[in-house]
Amino acid sequence: MKSEERKSFKIEPIGTIHSPFTKADGVPIQSAFAKGVEGWIDILPDFTGGLSDLEGFERIWLLYWFHKASKVQLKVKPYLDSVERGLFATRAPCRPNPIGISAVRLLRIDGCKLYVAELDILDGTPLLDIKPYIPKFDYFQVKRTGWIEKAQSETKLADNRFLKNSK
Amino acid sequence: MKSEERKSFKIEPIGTIHSPFTKADGVPIQSAFAKGVEGWIDILPDFTGGLSDLEGFERIWLLYWFHKASKVQLKVKPYLDSVERGLFATRAPCRPNPIGISAVRLLRIDGCKLYVAELDILDGTPLLDIKPYIPKFDYFQVKRTGWIEKAQSETKLADNRFLKNSK
Repeated sequence: MKSEERKSFKIEPIGTIHSPFTKADGVPIQSAFAKGVEGWIDILPDFTGGLSDLEGFERIWLLYWFHKASKVQLKVKPYLDSVERGLFATRAPCRPNPIGISAVRLLRIDGCKLYVAELDILDGTPLLDIKPYIPKFDYFQVKRTGWIEKAQSETKLADNRFLKNSK
Repeated sequence: MKSEERKSFKIEPIGTIHSPFTKADGVPIQSAFAKGVEGWIDILPDFTGGLSDLEGFERIWLLYWFHKASKVQLKVKPYLDSVERGLFATRAPCRPNPIGISAVRLLRIDGCKLYVAELDILDGTPLLDIKPYIPKFDYFQVKRTGWIEKAQSETKLADNRFLKNSK
């Protein structure tokens, strides 16, 4: 066990994500399934200096904390399948470090408010980071996408299965 | 200021990334520029149960802690440009929450070792999370990519500018 591995790090939100979704039930499971869903992000004033040049990007990555996720489950039944899969082969929120990533559409920036669309995120979610979405960095052609290729479900909406205090 | 915003969260690595890069100088700035670079990841034994079904995916997202990044800089001169840009419009590591994302190629899994390629990450970097790379979730056509469209530099390799104790 190397010392680096057992270290822990502290993270502090840089803002809060606001969406129409106050419950997990019915949230689109991916931003690709969230057409028409709009919301906004309040960035803490300390960090607004870092927002320059962002508005030129049509889409941005949000990194955020799954603040309502249940405790870690190393095997999960994903929304898109009917059998259990290894957690790291899924996007389920009940992760050792419950960090989500979503590439949402950036509509406009007004001071410390970012207006966004195609949101698949719960209202009140703490925002950790923003990065520009750049296809030449973020798009890779792949032939194999594991269990997803023969996934049993067509659902595009979440339910409460990965929520705190729900079983 | 909402209470959620001032909360802090603790994260603990789930493993360590090993690459040929012991210094920032010369590391590919993106995995898209890291053809032929191989390395491996040691996953802590507690979490190997979550690796089932992952081997079916050709490519995986790694979320990791930029453990050598300098302190936060809200304006940075990116590798690809000659003028300063807002931090959140760049992928620079000197972020309030220094979390990086890279989609690397998964070669094979052997117990708690993941062999990977197209690595743009420093040796010894703490790993926070793994997610499957799924083009239908992760690829978006975009028309606008801000300053990147007219970026001044063609470099594909990093230098020490964002490193701790280097200026």
